[in-house]
Amino acid sequence: MPVEPIRYVTKVDLTKPGDEQPQVHNRWHPDVPFSETITPGEIVKVECLDWTGNQIKNSDSADDILNVDLSRIHYLSGPFNIEGAAPGDVICVEIHDVQPLERQPWGYCGVFHKSNGGGFLDRFYPEAAKAIFDFAGIQATSRHLPHVKFTGLIHPGIIGTAPSQEVLDEWNSRETGLIKQIQHLHDTAVAQPPLETNAHPGSATGDVAAKIAREGARTIPGRPENGGNCDIKNLTRGSKCYFPVHVPGAKLSLGDLHFSQGDGEISFCGAIEMAGVITISVSVIKNGIDKLSLKSPIFMPGDLQVHYGPSRYVTFEGFSVDEDGQQQYLCATTAYRQACIRAIEYLRRFGYNDYQIYLLLSSAPVEGHIAGIVDVPNACTTLGVPLDIFDFDASPEAEVAKLDMGNCALVKGSSHPVTYEFK
Amino acid sequence: MPVEPIRYVTKVDLTKPGDEQPQVHNRWHPDVPFSETITPGEIVKVECLDWTGNQIKNSDSADDILNVDLSRIHYLSGPFNIEGAAPGDVICVEIHDVQPLERQPWGYCGVFHKSNGGGFLDRFYPEAAKAIFDFAGIQATSRHLPHVKFTGLIHPGIIGTAPSQEVLDEWNSRETGLIKQIQHLHDTAVAQPPLETNAHPGSATGDVAAKIAREGARTIPGRPENGGNCDIKNLTRGSKCYFPVHVPGAKLSLGDLHFSQGDGEISFCGAIEMAGVITISVSVIKNGIDKLSLKSPIFMPGDLQVHYGPSRYVTFEGFSVDEDGQQQYLCATTAYRQACIRAIEYLRRFGYNDYQIYLLLSSAPVEGHIAGIVDVPNACTTLGVPLDIFDFDASPEAEVAKLDMGNCALVKGSSHPVTYEFK
Amino acid sequence: MPVEPIRYVTKVDLTKPGDEQPQVHNRWHPDVPFSETITPGEIVKVECLDWTGNQIKNSDSADDILNVDLSRIHYLSGPFNIEGAAPGDVICVEIHDVQPLERQPWGYCGVFHKSNGGGFLDRFYPEAAKAIFDFAGIQATSRHLPHVKFTGLIHPGIIGTAPSQEVLDEWNSRETGLIKQIQHLHDTAVAQPPLETNAHPGSATGDVAAKIAREGARTIPGRPENGGNCDIKNLTRGSKCYFPVHVPGAKLSLGDLHFSQGDGEISFCGAIEMAGVITISVSVIKNGIDKLSLKSPIFMPGDLQVHYGPSRYVTFEGFSVDEDGQQQYLCATTAYRQACIRAIEYLRRFGYNDYQIYLLLSSAPVEGHIAGIVDVPNACTTLGVPLDIFDFDASPEAEVAKLDMGNCALVKGSSHPVTYEFK
Amino acid sequence: MPVEPIRYVTKVDLTKPGDEQPQVHNRWHPDVPFSETITPGEIVKVECLDWTGNQIKNSDSADDILNVDLSRIHYLSGPFNIEGAAPGDVICVEIHDVQPLERQPWGYCGVFHKSNGGGFLDRFYPEAAKAIFDFAGIQATSRHLPHVKFTGLIHPGIIGTAPSQEVLDEWNSRETGLIKQIQHLHDTAVAQPPLETNAHPGSATGDVAAKIAREGARTIPGRPENGGNCDIKNLTRGSKCYFPVHVPGAKLSLGDLHFSQGDGEISFCGAIEMAGVITISVSVIKNGIDKLSLKSPIFMPGDLQVHYGPSRYVTFEGFSVDEDGQQQYLCATTAYRQACIRAIEYLRRFGYNDYQIYLLLSSAPVEGHIAGIVDVPNACTTLGVPLDIFDFDASPEAEVAKLDMGNCALVKGSSHPVTYEFK
Repeated sequence: MPVEPIRYVTKVDLTKPGDEQPQVHNRWHPDVPFSETITPGEIVKVECLDWTGNQIKNSDSADDILNVDLSRIHYLSGPFNIEGAAPGDVICVEIHDVQPLERQPWGYCGVFHKSNGGGFLDRFYPEAAKAIFDFAGIQATSRHLPHVKFTGLIHPGIIGTAPSQEVLDEWNSRETGLIKQIQHLHDTAVAQPPLETNAHPGSATGDVAAKIAREGARTIPGRPENGGNCDIKNLTRGSKCYFPVHVPGAKLSLGDLHFSQGDGEISFCGAIEMAGVITISVSVIKNGIDKLSLKSPIFMPGDLQVHYGPSRYVTFEGFSVDEDGQQQYLCATTAYRQACIRAIEYLRRFGYNDYQIYLLLSSAPVEGHIAGIVDVPNACTTLGVPLDIFDFDASPEAEVAKLDMGNCALVKGSSHPVTYEFK
Repeated sequence: MPVEPIRYVTKVDLTKPGDEQPQVHNRWHPDVPFSETITPGEIVKVECLDWTGNQIKNSDSADDILNVDLSRIHYLSGPFNIEGAAPGDVICVEIHDVQPLERQPWGYCGVFHKSNGGGFLDRFYPEAAKAIFDFAGIQATSRHLPHVKFTGLIHPGIIGTAPSQEVLDEWNSRETGLIKQIQHLHDTAVAQPPLETNAHPGSATGDVAAKIAREGARTIPGRPENGGNCDIKNLTRGSKCYFPVHVPGAKLSLGDLHFSQGDGEISFCGAIEMAGVITISVSVIKNGIDKLSLKSPIFMPGDLQVHYGPSRYVTFEGFSVDEDGQQQYLCATTAYRQACIRAIEYLRRFGYNDYQIYLLLSSAPVEGHIAGIVDVPNACTTLGVPLDIFDFDASPEAEVAKLDMGNCALVKGSSHPVTYEFK
Repeated sequence: MPVEPIRYVTKVDLTKPGDEQPQVHNRWHPDVPFSETITPGEIVKVECLDWTGNQIKNSDSADDILNVDLSRIHYLSGPFNIEGAAPGDVICVEIHDVQPLERQPWGYCGVFHKSNGGGFLDRFYPEAAKAIFDFAGIQATSRHLPHVKFTGLIHPGIIGTAPSQEVLDEWNSRETGLIKQIQHLHDTAVAQPPLETNAHPGSATGDVAAKIAREGARTIPGRPENGGNCDIKNLTRGSKCYFPVHVPGAKLSLGDLHFSQGDGEISFCGAIEMAGVITISVSVIKNGIDKLSLKSPIFMPGDLQVHYGPSRYVTFEGFSVDEDGQQQYLCATTAYRQACIRAIEYLRRFGYNDYQIYLLLSSAPVEGHIAGIVDVPNACTTLGVPLDIFDFDASPEAEVAKLDMGNCALVKGSSHPVTYEFK
Repeated sequence: MPVEPIRYVTKVDLTKPGDEQPQVHNRWHPDVPFSETITPGEIVKVECLDWTGNQIKNSDSADDILNVDLSRIHYLSGPFNIEGAAPGDVICVEIHDVQPLERQPWGYCGVFHKSNGGGFLDRFYPEAAKAIFDFAGIQATSRHLPHVKFTGLIHPGIIGTAPSQEVLDEWNSRETGLIKQIQHLHDTAVAQPPLETNAHPGSATGDVAAKIAREGARTIPGRPENGGNCDIKNLTRGSKCYFPVHVPGAKLSLGDLHFSQGDGEISFCGAIEMAGVITISVSVIKNGIDKLSLKSPIFMPGDLQVHYGPSRYVTFEGFSVDEDGQQQYLCATTAYRQACIRAIEYLRRFGYNDYQIYLLLSSAPVEGHIAGIVDVPNACTTLGVPLDIFDFDASPEAEVAKLDMGNCALVKGSSHPVTYEFK
């Protein structure tokens, strides 16, 4: 009874741009052709490019982050034909493992420039920055974030089924509506409409390719109908995820693998981004949408997770009074931003600069909770930073002498104020 | 070496209204007189009224919830004079234990009527409802929520230091500003300005009492400067909390004890509210505000916590597309509301009605996370419901036969549509 | 709907010897009269004396430990008549809570003199010693073990059902057989036969009392047929324990409450011993012995447990090569003794003396595992000491400067070598 | 800055016998030549053969287990020269990851025949048996143990430093002493003396090879001086292990990888045995033996571990009354055997036969604790079986209908009584 290794349904090439690889695609559209078929119950491996399709280098400069081309991202592996899946069904994807590629044992976390992607704190930290992480098995360290080491809760940032044409139309209408309504109030993009430039329709060609490029939904947002770019740090090894099926065969796609991420992924390119390989199997629940009343994905996390003792988190409270002292109304987003700012102010005293902390809060397994959402007018959120990722005592009781923390990768030749004085 | 029992610094009377008890108060104001002095390092016990000051009964009707007087709530124990604490310092409060009172082994969770308090889902569930929980030691069950039992993460809903006059003025300015700005857009109160009616200034009398009533900040919102009504479910036994000191002696107050709460405390009176006793000690960190860069409270949770396996949560994803299908911009509040709605739809199939589920998600230790906050335009949140609180299989794989779930306490004589059909 | 406090089925008097209190008893015998009846499903509270029946004082001398009368111990509350329980059934006891008595917020851990009780390491540490622990809510500290604080996994050391006459006869035959067989090889008691002196038969009098005194099994050992003195540290709040029923009404007894204990309870009086109150309910599984194939008790631990991160234990390996360098054959007992010795040698460098460490390993929640039991000739066990109970860094990487650790309570006037040099 | 994949210091060939591969060895001896050098801080990968060196097949027969040649086992990778390590030092080995080989995604658990290896329960289960486990990423299932799935706590069964000649002589004297003393009382080997047959001295030849064969310590037992075959299930990914150094360069060897194991590894070949790859780095603590008072290895487990809720274990109590009803004296080994027997009796009712359960208790992450080791004459141990490894309800409350559990692999043509009736 010879036993074969597990079948790869996708292999990727780390030396070529994503759009030269037809087994990946970067738009959500019902017409992207199947790249492979997966039989229910079969265990398969899927290689994935990093989210930028090889644009970022293992270097000490953030120039590549500064100049990243955001129209050429999220080259997703798939879409896969899940045998027997039909609209109205639910597919359950079990994530048996996720790993870095043996041939590329490193990843990166980036702060995007405010004018090119930005992030949750771009008002205060508008410059590009980067930290390279080296992977020793399931643990990561970074020469750009000294005195930190943690174990990866490795997970896919993006996993989802294809929209039907109706769902796609709804997305495009909904999001372009928002752009019309509020874009003028913001200085960064509030949403991204379909974009033909650099659309990668997988193996589609001709008219189909053109239609996909014209209509295909962009991949940045997660969406309630199919999941997609959820960036859920706990959707890790051992998880089972349930997705509604909108098109025959489900057209499951996935990618944007993260070695680790903090709740919120606050610096936008905030996880430890990597190329990697994910092992999955899929089952089909017939009429699952009705059976489970499933309008949006649900999941059961895995049982192999990093766990720190509950008392080993220094936890910051954030309220919906914004950084200008203005009272917002039950805004959990504002409240979480305040918690992040409080954490930055706190962690400075150990020697890190603000950009380093911003990268750290993005990539380490910090816990972001909605604590109270009803006590008008203040939402209250919490941000818990695990003490055990540091090799020094970072608790409030610590005797503190600033350590030499070096610096993260920044843009050469630019002046970088790396501290912001909050009121 | 005889050893004395631990000293009580506050005792409460469960048979009298809160405003007849001078050792408690219901406004934040620097002039509320000290009720007792606590020496750093001393271990003391503090009895607390339930948040309504005995307004709610152990009954099968929600009439008391419907008619609750919200001007007569949050009778906080204290304020305590923390010996040696001065403005600029930080006090660290260690919560050694929190328990129900032996003489009242029950608590309640309420859905407030939309016209009298409301809650996170009051648009869909405008009626008053209630569930009574019986406490067997550290475990709670409810005749109004059959087939559920869980262990309490017992914690104070409110704990904080007194504002200085400057801080208080800032609060009043900030919150009345919000009222002026947006109250006209809402049909429930967006914030609560000072209110002389039923102000309870503790043991103050005369002009001081009048000043407190006139200026004293209301207790509903937690606030960044002092904590207060944070409703953080993990601020439980064993936690250490750090608060900025704004007035001499710190004037620490606490109350609003919760036997258990879900992240968000979504039904407003959403925890299992109870009278109880909390055991604390306090230490003083001189110049702690500077030392710790502490603008808002931080805490280290306790090490004795309920823990379910990470894979024992059915987890719902919520995105910032609202219940009318409108796209919101990175709004975590909207996203969390969607996750709550998805959980309600899912849990119905076991036989609970929507009000029961609303009460359950409020009071059980559900986990609400901010997953992704940068993927424009969608914030993504998750809501994890622990499977192990049910005595039946509530997983997606479960074979389902609806159980007889009875009903929660509702208002007599009123017609209650207990299901809302979401789009 | 007024709600009564939970009913007490046992109250104890801390000022009187145990044998003057008829609601407790200190022998296992089917004829000990019921002290109270408990209805299945009813929640009740049971007060318990500490295991010595008030013999130990809160003092800085170990004279009371040295002179403890071991014929006057284990005054168990009960036995309780579990309504409807009959031989062949199983009773499930749910432990809803265990707490110290408010009127006595302290406990103790003792090393017994080799000639009066002894312990796991009495060959090396023959003297009496003691540590007093003060309870701040659910946390304990000790003036005799500075720089240590931990949260209690509070549990009953003893809980079990009464033996039938047949079971009792089997015990007495089995244990007196052992005495005959091997007592001559040991210098401490290998087992304790029935002893009329100081037998306390509860409320029995006359012939029944005499029979109980003559035949009643001693309480030191746990036994497979009924549990009894199992000293299982995880049998804590929230646990459900299943016991075989041997006599009508089950005759459930319990006591010997522990605020905390390490695996093994190595110093014999090794837990933090205390008087306290336990809240329980009981259900009956008819014919449960057959249904569950239940020859010995089983249990499901509670979900509220102290938890340290798995990486926060310094773990010692112990093998079955004894302290004289002799090879033993697959002896897990020898192996665990070696692990304890290794831990003592390690912890000395922080400033504790051996008696202090012996007390600490007995009372703190250390984890003792059987790692390998088949690799002839060596059994391998592990002993994990949680780092988070210390307020200093006790990891192997720690920079060490010995702290002033004072001393534990010892016997006055005696010379105490407090270090043993192992080979 | 191109980044190389992590260096392999050992590769193995799965198609050739272990003794044809000079980069592995199967005896402990100071003269086994270094296979490679590892620089402190360098991260390296080490491939390892399964413990039998490819003797076991992925089949449905246990004939290979029956006929396994136990003189040809434990082909360890190494020994490695740890640069700078000298006698008196301690080396810290950090285990960054352990994985199955991609080219062999399966493993096995075996019950050895009583006459050829035996196991903890060989008196009752003398026949050979086997279960094959398939690896889907970090999860394992077995066609021989239906309705079970669990995540691997992957770890090396063997890891240790080489003995000095003095240490080796001590081992041989100690163990042959035992053989002389008690072998006549047993019907299986109590220890294994040096054996020239099939000794594999790595790359040594000639006289050195002959000396190693003649004197080299066998690999079955773990030993206090160097660790070795400890079979500690929690020595998993992320662990740091500290070993005494007895010879220049430390001569670190490792192997016998386990995908998963229960505490005790009771069936001897009881883990899920596999070939695999382990990623490590090593640091040197100069004079560490003195600094840490380190006579035996210690370790800090990793932070990425499977965790089930503490209440999700059905836990069996075992006492030192043996299976013949004889009272043993504080024998934890006997007590643990009883707990195992109780678990077998309990789990039968779901449809498994005894051999299946024996394999399951060996390989699944069951928890074996020493509960009480001082309550004369009974040691008490506990065995906790996690409920979450079963896809059915295995709790005491479960409604039970026996499932079709098929069978494990057995020896063809032999009559196998698969149930033992314990008294």
